[in-house]
Amino acid sequence: MKKNIFQQTAVSSESKGRTGLLTTTHGQIETPIFMPVGTQATVKTMTPEELKTIHTQILLSNTYHLYMRPGHDLVARAGGLHSFMNWPGPILTDSGGFQVFSLGPLRKITEEGVAFQSHIDGSRHFISPEKSVEIQNSLGADIIMAFDECIPYPADHEYVLHSVDRTTRWAKRCFDAHNRWDDQHLFGIIQGGIFHDLRQRSAEALLAMDFPGYGIGGLSVGEPKESMYDVLDHLIPQMPQDKPRYLMGVGSPDCLIHGVLRGVDMFDCVLPTRIARNGTAMTSMGQVVIKNAVHTEAFEPLDPNCDCYTCQNYSRAYLRHLFKANEILGLRLLTWHNLHFLLHLMKTLRQAITEDHLVETCRAFYLQYYGKPLEW
Amino acid sequence: MKKNIFQQTAVSSESKGRTGLLTTTHGQIETPIFMPVGTQATVKTMTPEELKTIHTQILLSNTYHLYMRPGHDLVARAGGLHSFMNWPGPILTDSGGFQVFSLGPLRKITEEGVAFQSHIDGSRHFISPEKSVEIQNSLGADIIMAFDECIPYPADHEYVLHSVDRTTRWAKRCFDAHNRWDDQHLFGIIQGGIFHDLRQRSAEALLAMDFPGYGIGGLSVGEPKESMYDVLDHLIPQMPQDKPRYLMGVGSPDCLIHGVLRGVDMFDCVLPTRIARNGTAMTSMGQVVIKNAVHTEAFEPLDPNCDCYTCQNYSRAYLRHLFKANEILGLRLLTWHNLHFLLHLMKTLRQAITEDHLVETCRAFYLQYYGKPLEW
Ligand SMILES: [Zn+2]
Ligand SMILES: [Zn+2]
Repeated sequence: MKKNIFQQTAVSSESKGRTGLLTTTHGQIETPIFMPVGTQATVKTMTPEELKTIHTQILLSNTYHLYMRPGHDLVARAGGLHSFMNWPGPILTDSGGFQVFSLGPLRKITEEGVAFQSHIDGSRHFISPEKSVEIQNSLGADIIMAFDECIPYPADHEYVLHSVDRTTRWAKRCFDAHNRWDDQHLFGIIQGGIFHDLRQRSAEALLAMDFPGYGIGGLSVGEPKESMYDVLDHLIPQMPQDKPRYLMGVGSPDCLIHGVLRGVDMFDCVLPTRIARNGTAMTSMGQVVIKNAVHTEAFEPLDPNCDCYTCQNYSRAYLRHLFKANEILGLRLLTWHNLHFLLHLMKTLRQAITEDHLVETCRAFYLQYYGKPLEW
Repeated sequence: MKKNIFQQTAVSSESKGRTGLLTTTHGQIETPIFMPVGTQATVKTMTPEELKTIHTQILLSNTYHLYMRPGHDLVARAGGLHSFMNWPGPILTDSGGFQVFSLGPLRKITEEGVAFQSHIDGSRHFISPEKSVEIQNSLGADIIMAFDECIPYPADHEYVLHSVDRTTRWAKRCFDAHNRWDDQHLFGIIQGGIFHDLRQRSAEALLAMDFPGYGIGGLSVGEPKESMYDVLDHLIPQMPQDKPRYLMGVGSPDCLIHGVLRGVDMFDCVLPTRIARNGTAMTSMGQVVIKNAVHTEAFEPLDPNCDCYTCQNYSRAYLRHLFKANEILGLRLLTWHNLHFLLHLMKTLRQAITEDHLVETCRAFYLQYYGKPLEW
C-alpha cells in the first residue's frame, strides 16, 4: 500500500501557499495544479495531444457519467480509462457522489447507499461506497475518491453533523473495499459544511484512517466565497503537510488564488471549458464575451499576453465570426485558450511560491483581471 | 493576365485520366485533387494545421456565406480570406450562384442578376455577375468562379438553351469585371444540363473567351450518375488539354473514380465532412455507421488500413461512445478520417496514373469499397 505520494517542495513565507510533487502511476505532478475536466472520457472539444500542448498534468473524469455510458466494464475491457480515451498521463476520478446527489427527486439515500434513476434512460441503479470503489477500480484512474454524502447549502448544524458521520462510515467502507492500492490512490473527502467544529470532526476521523490524500468537499455549492475562505483558513492548518489537499469543484481565478494562498494543492472545475463554449474567454485583462459587437473588426488576438495556439493564430474578429456562425472551431479555440489561461496561471503561482513572491504575484494578477485589489 | 496555370504531367493509356500541376498564388497543386469545403471560412471542426497534416492542397470556401457573414468588406480589411482564416495555402471560392439559386421562393432572377433575401435575417440583397466578382476580389481566393445560372433537374431543352446563353453572357460580364487577374484565376463554368448539344454550345462559347480554367456545373443535382458520366464522356474531349477541369459539387468515391477516369482534375463536396458529423465513416471496406451496436466493444481502429490520426489512436468503441454521448471530439475524429480517406484516395489515383495502372487501381478500390465490380 503506497501512501507517501506527496512531497512539499517550497512554502510561501507570507502565506500558507506551497508547492509540492505528487507522484502517481502515470507520472509526477507539480502542485498547486488545476485539473481540466473530461466528464465523459473527453475534455470537451480537445484531443489529448492538445491537452499536452498546454501542459495539462492530470485530468479529472466523472465516475457517474462513465458508469452510465459507456459502462465501467466496457472501459475495463478497453484496457482502462487511460487506454480508452488515449490519455497516457495521470487521471483522477470522482466518486459519483456529487452527481447522484444532484439528481434530486430521482434518488433515494439510505445508510447502505443511494438508489437513483439514470438521467439518460430512467433505468434504476444503486451506488454504495463499495460500488463506487468497484467502478473506480475498473476505470483505473491514478487517484480515486471516497463516496461521500453531498448535502445542499444551506443546511443546519444537526443535519450536517449526521451527514459528516455517515461520510466517515462510508469512507471506511471505501477504504476496506479498495483493491488496487498499488496503483490507485484513494482520497478521503472532508465534509462539514461551513461549521468549523464539524469540519474538524470530519478531518480528525478521516485523518485517523490515513488516506494518501484528502479532498475538501461541500464547498463552492452556493455559500458566499468568504465562507469558503473561512473554512479553508480553519481547516487546512489541521491537515497534514505530507498529504495533498484537493479543493473540489473550484476553478474561478479568484478562488484559485484564495485557495493557493491558503495551502490548497489541487483544483478542478468545468468553468473554463463551459464558459468557453458559451463564448466567454478568461484573459489577462478579465473576461471577454467574444460575440459582443465591439469585437466585429477587432483584428488583434484574444489576449495579447497569451502564447496559446488561439492567440498566436487568430483574431477576435475571426473568433466572433465562428461563434456567430455556430462553428465548432470557435468552441475549440476558446476552450483551448481558457484551459491554457488557467494552467498558465497555476504555473505562475507555482513559480511565485518557489521564488517567494506569491502574495505580490496574486495581487498583481487580481488587480489586472478584476480591476480591484485582492483582499488579503 | 496569367492564364497558363496548368500543365498536364501524365496520362493514363487506358483511359482519359491524367495528372497535372496547377500553379496558384499560394502554391502548386498536384491534380487530380479533392478540395475540402470550408463554407464559412472554416472546414467544419478542423484547424488549418490539421488540414495540412492530411495533405490538403486547396480549400473551397463559399462566396454567398461569407458575403452574408461576416461580409466580404470585413474579410478584406482582415487582409483577405487566407489571413482571416489562417490558411496559407491555395483557396477557391465559388460564385455564390449555386446558393442563391437554391433559395427558391426567396429569390428572383432577371438578366441583370438575382435578387434574394438572406437565409439568416431576411434582409434583401442583389448579386449580379459583377457583384459576385467584386465579392470574390475582396475575399482574395486564388481561384474564383464566374457567376452562372444554376437550373433545376430535370429541365427541358428550350429552358436549358436559354439558360446556357445567359450563363455565357454572365461569364463575359464576370470576365470584364475581374480586376485581379495577376493573383486570382477566374474560371468559366460550362452548363447545359444533360444535353450534349447544349454542353457543346456552352463549352464553345466559354472556350472562346479563354479562361484560365473551367468548371463543369449543373451536374450532381439529382440526375442519374450514368447521365453525369455520359456528359463527361462527351464534353471533356472538347475541353483543352492545357486548362484544368473542375467537376463541381462531386465527392462520393464512385463519382471521383468515374470523374478521374474521364479526365477531371478537380472536385469538391461537403459529403465527407457532412456524413462524418452524422457518424458515418468512409473506410477501405466501405461505409461504417459508428453508432451501430456492433461497434460497442470493437476495440480495433475505424479502418485498419488507414494511417490517419483517428485510426492510429482511437478504437471504434471509443468513437461510438463519443457519438452516443454527443461529444464534439467524435465529430472532429470522423471528419479528420473522412477527409484523410478521400485525399489519400486522390493521391493513390495520381500515383496510379503516373505508373499507368489507373484502371486496375480503380477496379480494386471499387470492389473493396462497394463490394461489386466497377463498370468500366
Ligand atoms: Zn490564448
Ligand atoms: Zn483513418
